[in-house]
Amino acid sequence: MRLQLDPQHEPASESGWRRTWFDIIYRHDTRLARNFDLLLIVAILASVLVIMVDSVASIHARHASLLYRLEWGFTLLFSIEYLMRLIVVRHPLRYALSLWGVIDLLSILPTYLSLLLPRSQSLLAVRVLRMLRLFRVLKLTQYVEEGSVLIGALVRSRRKILLFLSALVTIAVVFGALMYVVEGPHHGFTDIPTSIYWAIVTMATVGFGDIAPQSALGRFITSLLILIGYSIIAVPTGIYTAELASGLRSDVREDHADHRVCGGCGQQGHDPLAGYCLRCGQPLPPPGG
Amino acid sequence: MRLQLDPQHEPASESGWRRTWFDIIYRHDTRLARNFDLLLIVAILASVLVIMVDSVASIHARHASLLYRLEWGFTLLFSIEYLMRLIVVRHPLRYALSLWGVIDLLSILPTYLSLLLPRSQSLLAVRVLRMLRLFRVLKLTQYVEEGSVLIGALVRSRRKILLFLSALVTIAVVFGALMYVVEGPHHGFTDIPTSIYWAIVTMATVGFGDIAPQSALGRFITSLLILIGYSIIAVPTGIYTAELASGLRSDVREDHADHRVCGGCGQQGHDPLAGYCLRCGQPLPPPGG
Amino acid sequence: MRLQLDPQHEPASESGWRRTWFDIIYRHDTRLARNFDLLLIVAILASVLVIMVDSVASIHARHASLLYRLEWGFTLLFSIEYLMRLIVVRHPLRYALSLWGVIDLLSILPTYLSLLLPRSQSLLAVRVLRMLRLFRVLKLTQYVEEGSVLIGALVRSRRKILLFLSALVTIAVVFGALMYVVEGPHHGFTDIPTSIYWAIVTMATVGFGDIAPQSALGRFITSLLILIGYSIIAVPTGIYTAELASGLRSDVREDHADHRVCGGCGQQGHDPLAGYCLRCGQPLPPPGG
Amino acid sequence: MRLQLDPQHEPASESGWRRTWFDIIYRHDTRLARNFDLLLIVAILASVLVIMVDSVASIHARHASLLYRLEWGFTLLFSIEYLMRLIVVRHPLRYALSLWGVIDLLSILPTYLSLLLPRSQSLLAVRVLRMLRLFRVLKLTQYVEEGSVLIGALVRSRRKILLFLSALVTIAVVFGALMYVVEGPHHGFTDIPTSIYWAIVTMATVGFGDIAPQSALGRFITSLLILIGYSIIAVPTGIYTAELASGLRSDVREDHADHRVCGGCGQQGHDPLAGYCLRCGQPLPPPGG
Repeated sequence: MRLQLDPQHEPASESGWRRTWFDIIYRHDTRLARNFDLLLIVAILASVLVIMVDSVASIHARHASLLYRLEWGFTLLFSIEYLMRLIVVRHPLRYALSLWGVIDLLSILPTYLSLLLPRSQSLLAVRVLRMLRLFRVLKLTQYVEEGSVLIGALVRSRRKILLFLSALVTIAVVFGALMYVVEGPHHGFTDIPTSIYWAIVTMATVGFGDIAPQSALGRFITSLLILIGYSIIAVPTGIYTAELASGLRSDVREDHADHRVCGGCGQQGHDPLAGYCLRCGQPLPPPGG
Repeated sequence: MRLQLDPQHEPASESGWRRTWFDIIYRHDTRLARNFDLLLIVAILASVLVIMVDSVASIHARHASLLYRLEWGFTLLFSIEYLMRLIVVRHPLRYALSLWGVIDLLSILPTYLSLLLPRSQSLLAVRVLRMLRLFRVLKLTQYVEEGSVLIGALVRSRRKILLFLSALVTIAVVFGALMYVVEGPHHGFTDIPTSIYWAIVTMATVGFGDIAPQSALGRFITSLLILIGYSIIAVPTGIYTAELASGLRSDVREDHADHRVCGGCGQQGHDPLAGYCLRCGQPLPPPGG
Repeated sequence: MRLQLDPQHEPASESGWRRTWFDIIYRHDTRLARNFDLLLIVAILASVLVIMVDSVASIHARHASLLYRLEWGFTLLFSIEYLMRLIVVRHPLRYALSLWGVIDLLSILPTYLSLLLPRSQSLLAVRVLRMLRLFRVLKLTQYVEEGSVLIGALVRSRRKILLFLSALVTIAVVFGALMYVVEGPHHGFTDIPTSIYWAIVTMATVGFGDIAPQSALGRFITSLLILIGYSIIAVPTGIYTAELASGLRSDVREDHADHRVCGGCGQQGHDPLAGYCLRCGQPLPPPGG
Repeated sequence: MRLQLDPQHEPASESGWRRTWFDIIYRHDTRLARNFDLLLIVAILASVLVIMVDSVASIHARHASLLYRLEWGFTLLFSIEYLMRLIVVRHPLRYALSLWGVIDLLSILPTYLSLLLPRSQSLLAVRVLRMLRLFRVLKLTQYVEEGSVLIGALVRSRRKILLFLSALVTIAVVFGALMYVVEGPHHGFTDIPTSIYWAIVTMATVGFGDIAPQSALGRFITSLLILIGYSIIAVPTGIYTAELASGLRSDVREDHADHRVCGGCGQQGHDPLAGYCLRCGQPLPPPGG
């Protein structure tokens, strides 16, 4: 049961209302489909807002009943949408087991479960996964090209970044154990996992300050750790920038390349505007020909 | 009533004192106009300084009367300037509804309103918008070229940065809800909006420390969030750097261009290694000749 | 007794069980050797986990005996591995004095010492150095190419980064002394070393907040320090990115080289636009032909 | 009385002991001069260490007398050096008024003044300026090339970075005033200057946490400010990286350029290894000729 990242879905039937609704729900190129997308974005954002607002004690105390009804309204709406998605697609199971299908299910299930189980906070958190549904809609709009450039560079540099993160974690483990010895539990470094958490917080220049060194030696080691972190913060940036720049450059080169070969001398690499060979002066065929 | 970012204004009359003052106020290429700009910068900075100093309790207690008079002095000065701008321009309404016109009005209005309304802090804040007026003056000086390169790269990368910010906010919402469940109100994560605020503060490596995880699981999730934030901090930097570098590169390409003109057809922009015109096929003179 | 970073080891004998084990332990190209590497990674991670978990007071209280036995199990395992490494290699002393040999020894010695000495925390910290052993295994897998690109760029930019760190430390010393004078011991700046620690924490944008300026002048100087730090945070990133990009570019250049061979003298590496051999002046075939 | 950044000094006489000492003190190319530089570095670092250690209350209590004598020792040493510099140079006043001359004087004056004035902390801080003297020595060693590349890129991008800092400060002023209104003095935002300090600390991702928003609206505005800061942190990095990369690139291009012109066809841009023109095949003059 492997989750497929983004399978191509096919309509259940070639015509009829199921086909109409398939086009509205799964495609994005008609006016109706775009309105549906827009409605979905608004509903998702509104329902996440309700979840957020419901967690504020003072608001929950006053508007519990209204928020409860709104939450059920959104859940029913998303449930109908989920059923429609299952009905109009040719392979409903394939949709249900795809990444988006699972997220769609996870975003409605907790509200139903809260009828059986006592209303726990954990269920609430899962509902926030609705937010992720936004990405499905977004990825099919005008931002698709920008997104693919950014993600492409991330994917190409994933091994370098993974390697870098391993080095980072190893340094954090070693410095965390060191600080546990130097500062000890009475200065907040209660155990090695906590010290490692502190080392990560420090190296990444977050620095909450909930735990901070208090001895002179501890502060000296902290300064060293910070200087190391500060020097290598450049590494992921460098990796990503270099990949992105090389991606943008090769796009440009690709777009502007001219594949014409001179009939007289075989010369390549002409300017797309050239009408004659730059080496022997013979006429060139028209570009793109 | 759309705000125009930066419309071209025209003088109300072609000659006379209105024309003279239009040149002084709206243009920047005479000695008088430059002195006016300089005076304006000094007045803006001085008036913002008065506002800042007036907010310090100990100074306000001793010099309330002096600061009150200074504030009215600056307000009258800026009011006269505002009226002059309206008088000397051909379409006063167009100026009043432009972005700069609105900022100019907002920077004098609060002081007058304080006569009617009790002197509230909110009015005070609006007056600080005067600071923004500096940009109008600055953008017309020697820094205009540097500014346009920087802003150009920002504008070209705006969609990528917007996309990145959306992803960032989504991650913050999901991790915020997660931490609300894991840590709960008694560790400072009082509600989901507060947790999201914490997640943004953490991912962006600000890390105030007013709220910090205290359970082992919470600290582990925080470490994950920090590593994610640390890995993708590269993204906006990469986007911007790549855009800026490509901007600078195309400048360089301009400098290294081939300046040969074809004797047959007058075509320019040949490859430096070309021996024949790309348009008419006639032999070219040697490059650098 | 110079530590060699990574000497090439040779087997003690050309055949027999010592040769078999040498291939398993020191090489990485057979199935057995890869399984050994995998086992070693798991053992290292598990033993570091035991050390981490043992430092948590509540877990230590309940499972002290189990953790003690696990620790001795891992120590014996790593001891056997260490002895095997000494036995199967041709020059055991050379291995023992290499960087990895010393780390291997340091990761087992503390447990034995704890029998003689009272069980101190310092010994515990040294055992975490086992974590470093992971790098030996990692560097021989599929990540070797990515790693060498990243480290190559770091090595090439080491002098620039060192120079930058010197400037950073000097600024930290000067601003630290300044803040010691301005804020003084009663605001947490107890002495100059502490103030320098604070300046490093601030410039690197970590900002624990355990020490923070409280006077108006101190806050103004802090703002200056932050703006300086914020402006030059670009420097290590710029250095590293430029080096990395230039490394990647030369890779690309390699790919786009001209593969024509001169018929007269066999010279390669011509300019793609060249019509004649750069060495003997004979006509070249057209590129891409 | 303009401070000259780095004037060329000339010896007071062409021979004799003054000339010998001039070569030792002001030049760096003999073995004696290099030993002098090394001695100076050690003395500077040791004297700064004494100042730092002297500020620690517990050490000062025990070793006040020793540290006092060491400080006077270093001061006398640097005084002799200062006098020697004045004696052996042709234009003593020009040296005394140069940037380095003033720093040299400032690093010895405070100890003498402490005989007249009560020993104040302010005098102590000025002595730390001795640290800056290191740069004079460092800039004349093997790091001179690396340093000039780094500083060159900083200098070329100074106007862009200045422009960026102005924008940063303006945003900090506007958001500072806003937060002063929203959070108010009872949440730590005591006045506008303090709020601006907080806004700078937040935008630059330092985040001490000594002041932090506590209202929901304040936290929302803070999140906005952080996202703005996070988006534009890329700008100085981008500026600097682009400048540095273009600097490195043009160095490479400069070094590898071949200025030979073909006698037959006037073609330029040959490979430095070429013996024959790439366009017409005629022999080229030897490179560098």
